[in-house]
Amino acid sequence: MNKSILDYETVELDDENSALVIIDQTKLPSLTEIVNLKTAEEIWDAIYLLKVRGAPAIGVAAAFGIYLLSKKIETEDYTAFYQEFCRQKEYLNSARPTAVNLSWALNRMEQVCVSNKDKSVAEIKELLKQEAISIKEEDIRVCKSIGEYGLTLIKPGDGILTHCNAGQLATCKYGTATAPIYLGLERGYNLRVFADETRPLLQGARLTAYELHSAGVDVTLICDNMSATVMRNGWVNAVFVGCDRVAANGDVANKIGTSVVATVAKRYNVPFYVCAPTSTIDMNTPTGADITIEQRPASEVTDMWYKERMAPEGIKVFNPAFDVTDHDLISGIVTEYGVAREPYAESLREIFSKV
Amino acid sequence: MNKSILDYETVELDDENSALVIIDQTKLPSLTEIVNLKTAEEIWDAIYLLKVRGAPAIGVAAAFGIYLLSKKIETEDYTAFYQEFCRQKEYLNSARPTAVNLSWALNRMEQVCVSNKDKSVAEIKELLKQEAISIKEEDIRVCKSIGEYGLTLIKPGDGILTHCNAGQLATCKYGTATAPIYLGLERGYNLRVFADETRPLLQGARLTAYELHSAGVDVTLICDNMSATVMRNGWVNAVFVGCDRVAANGDVANKIGTSVVATVAKRYNVPFYVCAPTSTIDMNTPTGADITIEQRPASEVTDMWYKERMAPEGIKVFNPAFDVTDHDLISGIVTEYGVAREPYAESLREIFSKV
Repeated sequence: MNKSILDYETVELDDENSALVIIDQTKLPSLTEIVNLKTAEEIWDAIYLLKVRGAPAIGVAAAFGIYLLSKKIETEDYTAFYQEFCRQKEYLNSARPTAVNLSWALNRMEQVCVSNKDKSVAEIKELLKQEAISIKEEDIRVCKSIGEYGLTLIKPGDGILTHCNAGQLATCKYGTATAPIYLGLERGYNLRVFADETRPLLQGARLTAYELHSAGVDVTLICDNMSATVMRNGWVNAVFVGCDRVAANGDVANKIGTSVVATVAKRYNVPFYVCAPTSTIDMNTPTGADITIEQRPASEVTDMWYKERMAPEGIKVFNPAFDVTDHDLISGIVTEYGVAREPYAESLREIFSKV
Repeated sequence: MNKSILDYETVELDDENSALVIIDQTKLPSLTEIVNLKTAEEIWDAIYLLKVRGAPAIGVAAAFGIYLLSKKIETEDYTAFYQEFCRQKEYLNSARPTAVNLSWALNRMEQVCVSNKDKSVAEIKELLKQEAISIKEEDIRVCKSIGEYGLTLIKPGDGILTHCNAGQLATCKYGTATAPIYLGLERGYNLRVFADETRPLLQGARLTAYELHSAGVDVTLICDNMSATVMRNGWVNAVFVGCDRVAANGDVANKIGTSVVATVAKRYNVPFYVCAPTSTIDMNTPTGADITIEQRPASEVTDMWYKERMAPEGIKVFNPAFDVTDHDLISGIVTEYGVAREPYAESLREIFSKV
C-alpha cells in the first residue's frame, strides 16, 4: 500500500541523534523527498527556503537544530559552551523574521542552558534533547486541543475555507487550521473544504490540498481570488487559518493574502477564525504594525514554478511573504486553552494566565 | 530597434481580406506570435482559448470573423445567405458566455444584413466589412474617451491598481482600464501602477505588466492576494478595472477576483472605478445575478503553466472565469460619455440617452 504523506513525520531526529530529518516541502506534491540536515547552514537554508515551514514546525525544527549544533560544541567549559550556543542560536534565528515560534523555541532551548549552568555540558546537551522532544510532543497536544475548540465552532456538513498551509505539514500532527478538519473527519462531520492555492509559493495547492485529499477530506482547490465567489455562493460557513505571530491586541500576521480573505469574509458574514498555539502569541508585540514582514525574492512570483518566465524581464515585483489582519476582522483566536474573542487585549491576557 | 508589443495591432484584417490577424496572447510574454485565422473553427478556438481576449477585442474579432465567414457563403439569394450567416453567428457567439461584446458585435453585424436585405449579397458583404472596420475605429475612439474621463479622477503621482488585462491587448488601442494610464504617461503624470498577476491565466503578469513596462510606465507586479498590503501601505489612490458586462443596476461581471479587489478597496477607502464602453453595458440584464459566469477547465489551475503538476492528481477544482462585483462597491463606471455614479439604475439610463 502506498504511504500517505500523513504517515511521514514533518520534523524528527534520526536514530543516531545526528541529523534533523524533514520532508522537503518545496518538492511536494510531485516528489516526497526526505532530507537529513546536519550543519548549521543546512538547517538555516531549510528554514529560509521553506523546505520546512509553518510556524509550529519551524519552532520544532529550530529546537532539534540547536540541539544538534550544541552537541558538536567541543568544550567542557560552560561559559565557552554557552557563548557558542548563543552564536548558533542567533544564526538560526536569522533565517526568517516573521514567525515568533522560531525565536520562541530557541529562547526555550537557551533557557535550558541558563537554568542548568551548574550541570556538566554533557548533561546540558542531554537536557536540550529532552526539551526539543518536549516541544514536539507539546505541539501535537496543542494542535489536538486547538482542533477540539475549533470543532465547537462548526457543525457537521459545514463548508470551511482555509488559506496557505496550517496543516499537519506545518506542525508535527493535526495542523492548527486543519485540526478541526481532521478531528471532524474522525467524527463523521462530512466537512467540505476550500483550499486557497496561496500564491506565490502555492502552499495551498501543493500542501493543503495534497494532505487533506490524501486523508480523504472533501477538498476543492481554488485560486486566491475566488474566495468571494465561494462565499457569495453560500458554500463557506467558517474560515480557519493559522498564524505566524499574534500581537497583544489580536492583530495577526499570517501568510500573504490572509487579510484579504478576512476582509471578504466580513463582507459575506462568514466567521473568520485564527488558530494560534500560545507559542505564536507574542504579548511583547503591541500591534500588527510592530511585526516585521519578510520580503522575498521576485523570482518566486515571476518564474519559480513556471515552464517559462511569466512576466517581462526587468519588471518590478513586490513580494511580501505575510500580511497583517486587523483584529476587528477576526471572529475568534482559537488557542489550546480556548477561544479568545474581542476585546483581545483582555482575552489574550486571560489565555496567558492559563499557560 | 525592437518592436514594442504596442506596435502590433491586437486585431486586424490581412491585406487580402482573407484572414483575421491576431497576436496569440496565450504565448506572451515569452513569444510574440502573429496568427492568421480563416475558418470558423479557428476563430472560435482563438476566442475560447483566449488567444484573443478582453471584451472589446473579442467584439472586434467577432465582427471581422463573421465578415470573413460571410464572404465565403456562396449564394446570391438573400434568404439562403442570411440563414447561413445566422448559423455562423450563433456558432461564434457560443465561444464565451460572459462578455456581452461578443453578442453585441455579432448583433450589430446581423443588423447590417437585416437593414440591407434589398441589396445584393455582394453589397451586403462589403457593408459587413465596413461595419467591422467601424466597430474597430469606434473602439479606439471610445477607449481614448474613457481615458480622458478616467484621468479626471486621478492626479499626477497617484498610485493605481489594476486587475487582469483591460489594456491595449484587450482592445484595439489604449485599453479601457489602462487608458487613463497611457494618457497620463503622455501628459507626464508619473503614475505608479500595481498590476495584479490574475490567476489562473496570469493576464496581469503576462499582459498588463508586459504592455505597461514596454510603454515605459512605472509598473510593479503583485500577486492577487497582495492588494490589501499595497492599499494598507497607502500606495494606491485608485483602482481601475475593465469589465465584461455591466448590468442595469450597476453590478459588474469582470475577471475572477475583481470583486475581491473591490471589497478590499472599500475597506481601505480607495475609490474603485470600472472602465466600461457602453458596448459592455447590458440594460437587458437587470442585476449581476442574471449574468452567466463561465466555468473553465481545472487544468488552468493545477498544471497549465507549471513545470510539473502543482496540485495532487484527482483534486477537485472550482474555476470560475469571472465574478460579480456588487454596485455598492463601485465608486464610478467610466464610459465614453462620462462617469456614472450611484444610483446606477438612473445614471446608466442617462448615459444611454447619449448613445
